[in-house]
Amino acid sequence: MTVSAFDHPLLSQLVGDDEVAAFFGFDAELFAAIAFETALAEACAEAGLIPKESAAAIAEKLRNFRPEMVRLAAATRRDGLMVPDLVAQMRSHVGPPHGHHLHFGATSQDVTDTGLVLRLAEVLTIIQNRLATLLDALEEADRRFGAHKLTGVTRMQRALPISVADRLRTWTGPLERHAARLDELRPRLMVLQLGGAVGTRHAFNARGDVVAQRLAERLGLGLPAHPWHVERDNFAEFANWLSLVTGALGKMGQDLLLMSQNALGEASFAEGGGSSAMPHKQNPIAAEALVALARFNAALLSAMHQAQIHENERSGSAWTLEWLVFPQMVVAAAGSLKRAHDMMLSVTALGR
Amino acid sequence: MTVSAFDHPLLSQLVGDDEVAAFFGFDAELFAAIAFETALAEACAEAGLIPKESAAAIAEKLRNFRPEMVRLAAATRRDGLMVPDLVAQMRSHVGPPHGHHLHFGATSQDVTDTGLVLRLAEVLTIIQNRLATLLDALEEADRRFGAHKLTGVTRMQRALPISVADRLRTWTGPLERHAARLDELRPRLMVLQLGGAVGTRHAFNARGDVVAQRLAERLGLGLPAHPWHVERDNFAEFANWLSLVTGALGKMGQDLLLMSQNALGEASFAEGGGSSAMPHKQNPIAAEALVALARFNAALLSAMHQAQIHENERSGSAWTLEWLVFPQMVVAAAGSLKRAHDMMLSVTALGR
Amino acid sequence: MTVSAFDHPLLSQLVGDDEVAAFFGFDAELFAAIAFETALAEACAEAGLIPKESAAAIAEKLRNFRPEMVRLAAATRRDGLMVPDLVAQMRSHVGPPHGHHLHFGATSQDVTDTGLVLRLAEVLTIIQNRLATLLDALEEADRRFGAHKLTGVTRMQRALPISVADRLRTWTGPLERHAARLDELRPRLMVLQLGGAVGTRHAFNARGDVVAQRLAERLGLGLPAHPWHVERDNFAEFANWLSLVTGALGKMGQDLLLMSQNALGEASFAEGGGSSAMPHKQNPIAAEALVALARFNAALLSAMHQAQIHENERSGSAWTLEWLVFPQMVVAAAGSLKRAHDMMLSVTALGR
Amino acid sequence: MTVSAFDHPLLSQLVGDDEVAAFFGFDAELFAAIAFETALAEACAEAGLIPKESAAAIAEKLRNFRPEMVRLAAATRRDGLMVPDLVAQMRSHVGPPHGHHLHFGATSQDVTDTGLVLRLAEVLTIIQNRLATLLDALEEADRRFGAHKLTGVTRMQRALPISVADRLRTWTGPLERHAARLDELRPRLMVLQLGGAVGTRHAFNARGDVVAQRLAERLGLGLPAHPWHVERDNFAEFANWLSLVTGALGKMGQDLLLMSQNALGEASFAEGGGSSAMPHKQNPIAAEALVALARFNAALLSAMHQAQIHENERSGSAWTLEWLVFPQMVVAAAGSLKRAHDMMLSVTALGR
Repeated sequence: MTVSAFDHPLLSQLVGDDEVAAFFGFDAELFAAIAFETALAEACAEAGLIPKESAAAIAEKLRNFRPEMVRLAAATRRDGLMVPDLVAQMRSHVGPPHGHHLHFGATSQDVTDTGLVLRLAEVLTIIQNRLATLLDALEEADRRFGAHKLTGVTRMQRALPISVADRLRTWTGPLERHAARLDELRPRLMVLQLGGAVGTRHAFNARGDVVAQRLAERLGLGLPAHPWHVERDNFAEFANWLSLVTGALGKMGQDLLLMSQNALGEASFAEGGGSSAMPHKQNPIAAEALVALARFNAALLSAMHQAQIHENERSGSAWTLEWLVFPQMVVAAAGSLKRAHDMMLSVTALGR
Repeated sequence: MTVSAFDHPLLSQLVGDDEVAAFFGFDAELFAAIAFETALAEACAEAGLIPKESAAAIAEKLRNFRPEMVRLAAATRRDGLMVPDLVAQMRSHVGPPHGHHLHFGATSQDVTDTGLVLRLAEVLTIIQNRLATLLDALEEADRRFGAHKLTGVTRMQRALPISVADRLRTWTGPLERHAARLDELRPRLMVLQLGGAVGTRHAFNARGDVVAQRLAERLGLGLPAHPWHVERDNFAEFANWLSLVTGALGKMGQDLLLMSQNALGEASFAEGGGSSAMPHKQNPIAAEALVALARFNAALLSAMHQAQIHENERSGSAWTLEWLVFPQMVVAAAGSLKRAHDMMLSVTALGR
Repeated sequence: MTVSAFDHPLLSQLVGDDEVAAFFGFDAELFAAIAFETALAEACAEAGLIPKESAAAIAEKLRNFRPEMVRLAAATRRDGLMVPDLVAQMRSHVGPPHGHHLHFGATSQDVTDTGLVLRLAEVLTIIQNRLATLLDALEEADRRFGAHKLTGVTRMQRALPISVADRLRTWTGPLERHAARLDELRPRLMVLQLGGAVGTRHAFNARGDVVAQRLAERLGLGLPAHPWHVERDNFAEFANWLSLVTGALGKMGQDLLLMSQNALGEASFAEGGGSSAMPHKQNPIAAEALVALARFNAALLSAMHQAQIHENERSGSAWTLEWLVFPQMVVAAAGSLKRAHDMMLSVTALGR
Repeated sequence: MTVSAFDHPLLSQLVGDDEVAAFFGFDAELFAAIAFETALAEACAEAGLIPKESAAAIAEKLRNFRPEMVRLAAATRRDGLMVPDLVAQMRSHVGPPHGHHLHFGATSQDVTDTGLVLRLAEVLTIIQNRLATLLDALEEADRRFGAHKLTGVTRMQRALPISVADRLRTWTGPLERHAARLDELRPRLMVLQLGGAVGTRHAFNARGDVVAQRLAERLGLGLPAHPWHVERDNFAEFANWLSLVTGALGKMGQDLLLMSQNALGEASFAEGGGSSAMPHKQNPIAAEALVALARFNAALLSAMHQAQIHENERSGSAWTLEWLVFPQMVVAAAGSLKRAHDMMLSVTALGR
């Protein structure tokens, strides 16, 4: 069952990204949930809220925890998210008396949101590296082709001669700013969520802030001013960044599509796609994918912004909307970066 | 790897639809491609364009055809779609001399678009049945609760008393119109695509229209005035219909969320989701999903409309954009209908 | 103050449509409100709910009614819509004893929504005529240039020769279907809204259906099965139609932009825009506007679908969202049709 | 003619913002264009590219320049933007021999984009002040009502008691981050655009960088690494910021709508809107507007991201798309801030 092209065995080759997609699979979610519950137990033990032996037992037992999936699927349907039953299964797995102390003071959203942030930490590193590698490839293209000539085109009409370097500059400019933007937003995004049922950390007996601090340290995350479970601006901001990235690459892709028109012949690639009706054709597949992914993320961004309207202390509908949209935006951007890089490496000619 | 919630082993329980999702899996695509190539060969044979024995051999051999997937994945990446290599593998599988006549005069888009239409034929039946079943459930709710009282609320303020029947009427009204709309758009959507490389059926030696007619008959599809490969209005129109359906159900879900507020107590359900922090709570999970799916489809619809700008005789980027968006919209609508139906069956009280 | 390009004294020349915009100006709204209140009073008099002399006085007095605008603006801000104070001013203007009977049994939304439908009736005629005229212009282009040759282009690569007629057919196909779709949706859209405070026509003393029938007849509108004030599917459906129209024209515009590239020279126009830096250039301005308006409507359509989630018996937020979006979509589509027509008339060459 | 609610004499009271809208009116555009051309002439004179007397004459003459509007409107329609004819009229107005030196080396987009940035400089100050004032009002609300009790609500179900301060914190959190984000993006946005016909400053005889530096200084703008005419990320980023602001206020509005439900009575306002059918009602108009504007900007943001795909050295269609969308997003955000502030001032009770 592969409703999304990103999950499709064939189309994912065209638009997806297996490496980054893995962070949105169940194994990665489970791993993050285990990391959260383990570190929470340890933080609670340090704060004197649960016995130290319980924290140790939780850490020990969760190492080889695997949930019963059929039950978990049914529970997810019933509860609207997987955490309540996952925690119940974890508690059973740890067993009495220690299992009882697992998930102390926390709520499902703490596990889910912090678990997502933990996975994004790794994704951000991958994306950042890809951005740097792409910029290197563009620099290399500038060395190879920068002095070549192009026809500058405005409003689809021939304007004045420019160099390949001139056009490359318009592709790298946004990407360099995107790298700077990522540095700015990263500390806002890489923060712990720990709020308990209604975001007040009420169950920690006034030791919530201590637990949060210790937990953040253990997980390598920043400590927010207060729980942010209904404040989705950091995700919306990151979604915007993802769509800025795909947008910049979409412009690059669109330009290369136009340059590769036979009548212009301003771009050639070592690899190009074939046609079932015309085997001689060389289609600029990667460039097309960049345009498609840019327009895709631009549309999905709208949904992430709608999801900011997160009523009261938790909106099931707004939160579910994020789940439907956000992973795809991340994979679209990560896959675009990889594809743009491969495309630049396969360029055999730019300009004249 | 499950980037989309619709493909996720747990979240698909919450927002997905396994029955309809199956039509977007590879097996269903392959089955549709085989049906297309088989019927095309037969139509070409009838038109005297290929030997009758070739058509028979193609039909016979394709029955047990399974492609080599690793090669197909690599080819999809290279070609931007799976058909060129799929056809090549089909031809090898049929073998000389008949394999050569497979895919006569057609292009990849003919297989892909017609294959999608063939699968949608079955999906439409499922969706239509669900719509009817949901209307039945709403009628049943009207019988059970219609005479109960509700506080009519305008602009979130108490207005005047109404009956449950009054509010139910606002839920069924759009759904009844959606059923009528589906009847109107179905003949536009259920049509063959057969155009060849550039949509002119040039390779059929002036017998293209005959082939198209026979092929449409064999596949049980309508015959369009001309090939429509770059005319995406029928898909955009259907996407709109899908978002009209999720929108109507989103309004129902939103109303039920508001009615189920504890301070109002105007709606109760036999089933409700649990919380990891507050086991006593009963969350209206299905109603939330309806709202989330409505907002999701509303955002994705924008991308389907962007994809209408399909340049020249085929736009790789616009077409890829459809693939990223369209299956999800179908599954969102189909799943919403199922969920709304289950929710109405689980209603234990409406109004007072 | 011209926040929107459609209202801008200069940009409206480029993307707007003065003729259709007029239907969204205050005068047109006022005229529609007067028509509604006059016909409502007459229908109520016929149903014996108000004195016949009151209906006559209302009709007579409203003929020269002009509201006090400063007061009306302040009231709109306070009330969230203009009708409550407009009705109050109308009642004062009619004066006792008859003024009291004005707006009998109705609510603001009845005036606003029916008033919009009344104006759309005229807009639909204009749009339908423009669609027909554009199809004529395309037919004329086919006569003049249909036999000329073009390079068929798939995935931005030269494919096989086609004729201008082949490409024109991909432009007219969707437009012909749009004409058929308009016929289908028109009866759904052209219907009276009369519901009273919560949509139950409670204030008409069981004569609401009679009043509605008479009112619909007087206004030349269809009679819906029940009031539809929170059922926004007909507007969402029409918004989809508008974006289908701009999408079809956007594809035409995009094709013409590509054809008009100097290296191809497949399209020329009698008029083209100048540049402040390069006076010799001829920019295909109208084709660009078509693409921009297509992408604009595709984005706004998403908001119209979000606005379907119209909680309870009236959602101030969902309704306001429509007001922000809908008129622009109508003007974008109407203006696109006009622009596409003018562009086709100014074509001096297509193909070779 | 008022297609947009922001330009409507009545609805602008509800959703618009006259103060900020003024920066998108023609007068403000003209004023910015005059500032640009004057400063450009002075910078060119300093760089020895045009006579100093010409710069002085240009500055002197432009002070009282008003274009002939009918001609300008026709030219805008023909050229796709107003600058070519505006410059021609400016040159005539200055007269020979100095008029000839006006607009030296520049292109229309330099005037338009830099002119927009100049106006945004003032808008940013207004918006920043409003954000600060709103935060003050929220702090004041915290002082007055922070200790009051609220029912914490998760997934629309009663959860645990919280304080008004707890909920206020979820409204201020995003706004504080938005203030920080504005500081980060401002230097990227407040930059000169000077590129000439194709972005290479070719007409400045190798003195383009000097001219750009002097021009940026004179206009009080930052100097970008290179012309950014086709790099629209800074506008897309700012559009995202605007939609983050409206999203945060939409959440606040949604919460207040829910809190003001009669059955809860957790929020009251000194002012509330009236109904034409039920004069006793007090509708939370401003809160509704906040939700509507949030959903509006969320949809429009998608179009700004689509507009990043800006082909070659200038895309008429992508640029026009920005004009259709961007001013509305600015006014929506500015108006939301003002409305949210007024609403907080009119709060008479929060919580119990």
